[in-house]
Amino acid sequence: MGMVGGGPGSFIGHVHYMAAMLDGQIELVCGSFSSDPKKSLITGAKYFLPPERVYDTYQEMISEEAKLPEGVRMDFVCIVTPNHLHFEPAKLAMENGFHVVCDKPLTLDSDEAEVLVRIKNETGLLFALTHTYTGYPMVKEARKLIQDGELGKIRKLVVEYPQGWLSEALEQTDHVQASWRGDPKRSGKTCCVGDIGTHAFQLAEYVSGLKTVRLMSDLSTHVPNRVLEDDANMLLQFDGGARGVLYASQISAGEENDIKLRVYGEKGGIEFRQMEPNSLVIKWLNKAMEVRRTGTGFVSDIAAYNTRIPAGHPEGYLEAFANIYRNAATCIQHFLEGTEPPPEAMDFPTIYEGLRGMKFVDKAVESSEKEAWVEI
Amino acid sequence: MGMVGGGPGSFIGHVHYMAAMLDGQIELVCGSFSSDPKKSLITGAKYFLPPERVYDTYQEMISEEAKLPEGVRMDFVCIVTPNHLHFEPAKLAMENGFHVVCDKPLTLDSDEAEVLVRIKNETGLLFALTHTYTGYPMVKEARKLIQDGELGKIRKLVVEYPQGWLSEALEQTDHVQASWRGDPKRSGKTCCVGDIGTHAFQLAEYVSGLKTVRLMSDLSTHVPNRVLEDDANMLLQFDGGARGVLYASQISAGEENDIKLRVYGEKGGIEFRQMEPNSLVIKWLNKAMEVRRTGTGFVSDIAAYNTRIPAGHPEGYLEAFANIYRNAATCIQHFLEGTEPPPEAMDFPTIYEGLRGMKFVDKAVESSEKEAWVEI
Amino acid sequence: MGMVGGGPGSFIGHVHYMAAMLDGQIELVCGSFSSDPKKSLITGAKYFLPPERVYDTYQEMISEEAKLPEGVRMDFVCIVTPNHLHFEPAKLAMENGFHVVCDKPLTLDSDEAEVLVRIKNETGLLFALTHTYTGYPMVKEARKLIQDGELGKIRKLVVEYPQGWLSEALEQTDHVQASWRGDPKRSGKTCCVGDIGTHAFQLAEYVSGLKTVRLMSDLSTHVPNRVLEDDANMLLQFDGGARGVLYASQISAGEENDIKLRVYGEKGGIEFRQMEPNSLVIKWLNKAMEVRRTGTGFVSDIAAYNTRIPAGHPEGYLEAFANIYRNAATCIQHFLEGTEPPPEAMDFPTIYEGLRGMKFVDKAVESSEKEAWVEI
Amino acid sequence: MGMVGGGPGSFIGHVHYMAAMLDGQIELVCGSFSSDPKKSLITGAKYFLPPERVYDTYQEMISEEAKLPEGVRMDFVCIVTPNHLHFEPAKLAMENGFHVVCDKPLTLDSDEAEVLVRIKNETGLLFALTHTYTGYPMVKEARKLIQDGELGKIRKLVVEYPQGWLSEALEQTDHVQASWRGDPKRSGKTCCVGDIGTHAFQLAEYVSGLKTVRLMSDLSTHVPNRVLEDDANMLLQFDGGARGVLYASQISAGEENDIKLRVYGEKGGIEFRQMEPNSLVIKWLNKAMEVRRTGTGFVSDIAAYNTRIPAGHPEGYLEAFANIYRNAATCIQHFLEGTEPPPEAMDFPTIYEGLRGMKFVDKAVESSEKEAWVEI
Repeated sequence: MGMVGGGPGSFIGHVHYMAAMLDGQIELVCGSFSSDPKKSLITGAKYFLPPERVYDTYQEMISEEAKLPEGVRMDFVCIVTPNHLHFEPAKLAMENGFHVVCDKPLTLDSDEAEVLVRIKNETGLLFALTHTYTGYPMVKEARKLIQDGELGKIRKLVVEYPQGWLSEALEQTDHVQASWRGDPKRSGKTCCVGDIGTHAFQLAEYVSGLKTVRLMSDLSTHVPNRVLEDDANMLLQFDGGARGVLYASQISAGEENDIKLRVYGEKGGIEFRQMEPNSLVIKWLNKAMEVRRTGTGFVSDIAAYNTRIPAGHPEGYLEAFANIYRNAATCIQHFLEGTEPPPEAMDFPTIYEGLRGMKFVDKAVESSEKEAWVEI
Repeated sequence: MGMVGGGPGSFIGHVHYMAAMLDGQIELVCGSFSSDPKKSLITGAKYFLPPERVYDTYQEMISEEAKLPEGVRMDFVCIVTPNHLHFEPAKLAMENGFHVVCDKPLTLDSDEAEVLVRIKNETGLLFALTHTYTGYPMVKEARKLIQDGELGKIRKLVVEYPQGWLSEALEQTDHVQASWRGDPKRSGKTCCVGDIGTHAFQLAEYVSGLKTVRLMSDLSTHVPNRVLEDDANMLLQFDGGARGVLYASQISAGEENDIKLRVYGEKGGIEFRQMEPNSLVIKWLNKAMEVRRTGTGFVSDIAAYNTRIPAGHPEGYLEAFANIYRNAATCIQHFLEGTEPPPEAMDFPTIYEGLRGMKFVDKAVESSEKEAWVEI
Repeated sequence: MGMVGGGPGSFIGHVHYMAAMLDGQIELVCGSFSSDPKKSLITGAKYFLPPERVYDTYQEMISEEAKLPEGVRMDFVCIVTPNHLHFEPAKLAMENGFHVVCDKPLTLDSDEAEVLVRIKNETGLLFALTHTYTGYPMVKEARKLIQDGELGKIRKLVVEYPQGWLSEALEQTDHVQASWRGDPKRSGKTCCVGDIGTHAFQLAEYVSGLKTVRLMSDLSTHVPNRVLEDDANMLLQFDGGARGVLYASQISAGEENDIKLRVYGEKGGIEFRQMEPNSLVIKWLNKAMEVRRTGTGFVSDIAAYNTRIPAGHPEGYLEAFANIYRNAATCIQHFLEGTEPPPEAMDFPTIYEGLRGMKFVDKAVESSEKEAWVEI
Repeated sequence: MGMVGGGPGSFIGHVHYMAAMLDGQIELVCGSFSSDPKKSLITGAKYFLPPERVYDTYQEMISEEAKLPEGVRMDFVCIVTPNHLHFEPAKLAMENGFHVVCDKPLTLDSDEAEVLVRIKNETGLLFALTHTYTGYPMVKEARKLIQDGELGKIRKLVVEYPQGWLSEALEQTDHVQASWRGDPKRSGKTCCVGDIGTHAFQLAEYVSGLKTVRLMSDLSTHVPNRVLEDDANMLLQFDGGARGVLYASQISAGEENDIKLRVYGEKGGIEFRQMEPNSLVIKWLNKAMEVRRTGTGFVSDIAAYNTRIPAGHPEGYLEAFANIYRNAATCIQHFLEGTEPPPEAMDFPTIYEGLRGMKFVDKAVESSEKEAWVEI
């Protein structure tokens, strides 16, 4: 793996690093960590890289690595830069034959996303998008249970992602994370919807297996002088007739990252709360409530496959993140070997979900402006 | 107190009885418990009433009791019949000078509600509506905290009331509770919205102090051959700019009566969940999360006033219900004595909230049919 | 029912009243509420009693009521005085043919308890002791599940009752509740063990069906100048080989009334926490965790019998208390009618558990003083 | 770092690996992963080691690495073998100048432990013991709060570690983990006490800052034909007069790894539950309950120092484990540089806690056999 971004001061870069390292399956072999070559070298040294594999630019990294023999050169690029700097490195990497793991959202807008999808389809390379929450074992358990029809036909879905950290005008200070998220040039046409609404949307569709066909949205801004929206409430209608509610908020003061999903079918409902990710609550219509727990013997194979340690020893966000890396790396390894990866590994968010997320952003804005239902 | 309804087989009648009896402040002195005089007598005997105070009809009860001297006759009527049988007894009671405690929703439609409001205003009598959830001490704590400005300006509100009991077509069987709720003649133009949506709506406005000014709703029916809606999702806009989400559902399979409210202001948010009613969670923007508990010394006077037993000994639904009775009875007693009731007792849902609830039902239906935002 | 104690300023008296009234099955017909006849009359009026049924002393009440015809006279006496005033009224009531409902602990010491048991056995009257916690439906569910062998042979039991309210020297102030509990003349040889340790002990034996055969205890006092112990930790050994831990504490600062029981057998364990009494958690060895809830269709008949309202509407302490009253009253009614009560009603703590509780107090003190295991 | 143990089939070896790798601060440079050199090579390859740094035996690894120049050779040894194989490699490593990170418990018995302590003291090397639970940020928050006197003088402590996995006779099957734990030759004189009781004991003393001075224990065995105890209940007395309860169990059927600590002082109590490790509940005597959360701005510096990701993104067992590695590695690095490590890094379980744990095991057995209190 070669990393683009993640130099000194970066936050998400080291998260990707930790997630990639956790299982001992991936080796960081090169990087272009910063636009400042000196800073890049510092980060390279921290990660035990030889100086010659620390590049001044991602362009240089991609072209130089491409010249190295397979087995020596990086097998894939991981992109951990801010939103507006996903497109170019991803495009160049694929054009040079490298698989990609990219932070979400996919790009700055739908047009960029369409281009990347086209290149991905032409090259046949793998492209993983780090929608972290679908990496949790109990999310996979919920999905399996619904796929298996245990809940019957799905009728209702509620997904929410409340945060409170933008309750004050942080983007009008020098706060790094807030500054770019609040700036349309670096964040795109939304703040809250793109940053966390897309997570909620992707989680909902991943678990339920439903596709949203219409949405009605109400975006609003609550902090004075803020440019982009900081709260988003939506009604959803799904194929097959199920109805839903989605909301994302950055001004729900006091909330941390409380993404939560509930899905109800004819026979029962599931509840997953990211902040207590080792439990899946199942409320049955015709029997007592059940709580399935990671690491126990009472979960599906796919949940077990995504769990590292025994029951009662909590796994968290980094482990969920690492599941995406592990699955992507397993698939890349099989790709390199020309073999078919095991089905359980072909389970990570892809560029297609990235494109769908960008469309979701478009439609959420359109609906709110028109005050009308829109098709998606 | 004289009771209309609540004969053998009734459920809510005995709930009202228990709530009214709990504090030893109210005496049941008469009743017309059933349309069948024999059944009425059986219930009267169960409640230790002399046979002469058990009446064949509510009309007879009201006219006969009106002839008795004050101190002997009932002071107020409690109405525990199904929805379509609220209007007539309430009207007659007020016309004969009796205060009223009535089960919710107020009436079958807004027209009836308007009539009752007019009579109430003309007579100056007291009229309590048993929106039970606002009787909980921690609901009052939340309201007080918001009134005191501890959360700052309110920006976001989420209220939900998921139930699962109508996941199957119970109203197409001989299930008593389901049958009339699923029948427009007895239930009105909605099932889910009127039955539990109104609770959610009233709770939200009571606690937040906000008024809903616009709503966008999506009502749907998921069980085959069902006449009325069984799921309702809404976006809300409040005076002052706050935004909200309200949903009520009777097909959220596996859910019990999980009414829950979250309100967020500039400085923090509160969370109240009826199924764990002795705790109020307060998530602060600038300090650690706090949990206030009923019966402790760390709650407001109004919460303490509505609590009967020491901390750690849970109080529940019946105690919340009893708080409405106790407050209404205290006000009635002061009315009879010609004195001003203490402010803490002037705290129960009234006929005006009943009327507002009926308007809410109208608007929810209108918005869903038009697929458009409507003013309320 | 006639009440002894419970005059102005009393706390537990009104709790008994509320519990007795809740179901409309019991009528308060007389009382001797206070040693001050004027105060007694005030309380009598509050409860709508005619002045002639409000007595100056419990002796007078018992003798005068005994002269009234059955159906008019009280059927049983409820004793809500402090500990040292249980013995005499209970004795006199039984000697005059009245059944008794008595607050716990039974008496001031084992000798008194033995006398009452002898009289109870001679007269054949009913005697209920208000160990409230065994009135909860989910406690009964747990007991049933163990009786039915669902957990297999029981191996381990943990029962705890932490409180924090005596973290400061309240008994050295004019605090009513603390003063008598901290005074050996009114409380007996222990404070913490007698007051709440007996609750824990009774709950443990009731649910598990086990009998404690040996105990090892460590009583300690943490607040300066306090006379009696305020913390008690014990190891237990049960018939059949199960082991246990019991602790009770009044100096666990910040705790409310967090009595909690866990029982483990070969096949699984149950967990009941009084502060969330509508749930019973069952942790199975060979399947996923289960949560049974009051009011659902997924509990035993005995749990359902002790529940008043539908699932999701919490029932609490007063309802548990009322279950003891209701069951005792049902048995008394059958006694009066000369019929056999239904088995589900023959389920309330009795004088024998009261005596066993007094023995438990003796043994806890003895073990702690000797620093040795003692038989019980 | 060089690893002893952790070859194919090992569980805890990879846990150590993941924990060590997480922060990018430690590099695995060599290993002797198995007694079978071929297996060792497989594991070495998995971890991207060159074959020449994969050794046939730990003796060879230690002597060969010692010959390499500093900066190339491993800086410390990590020992992940079963209990009875800790002593020899640890001794040899220190004798050759290598620091040690060792899995718990320290050794097979107290004698071995004393020898290691002597060598450690003579060499001045660093020795970390992986008592994982004290790596959690909220455990450190609790400790800090107590150190700062926020709870006042400590009076009561309850620590419990229930597991259910040995409810059946797994050690009489070919179950790897159970087999050696149930075998005195490989596990020592206890099973439950040594394996998890020591964790509870260490956690209690670490957080409270108290030292246990006396204990009274009751060890028991519940599964037929089992050799060692599977349940342990103890009363504790601490210096300064605080009292405590400790229990550990492997036959609490249905329990996972629910280690939990409560400590009460004059002013309040804390509650930490490992299965929800991102929250610390603080119950105050004189104000409302507080919940401190990892990653928020409302925790101490030491808690923040041990946290990697923002609030609401749960960290779990591996992150706690990694905190031990990170702190130990930081200290080792400063040791190598001849500088003083920052105080916040000098915070990991040491060989002295390992020795104290072995004494605890001795005393627990002695007390249970004598049925008497013993000094510790």
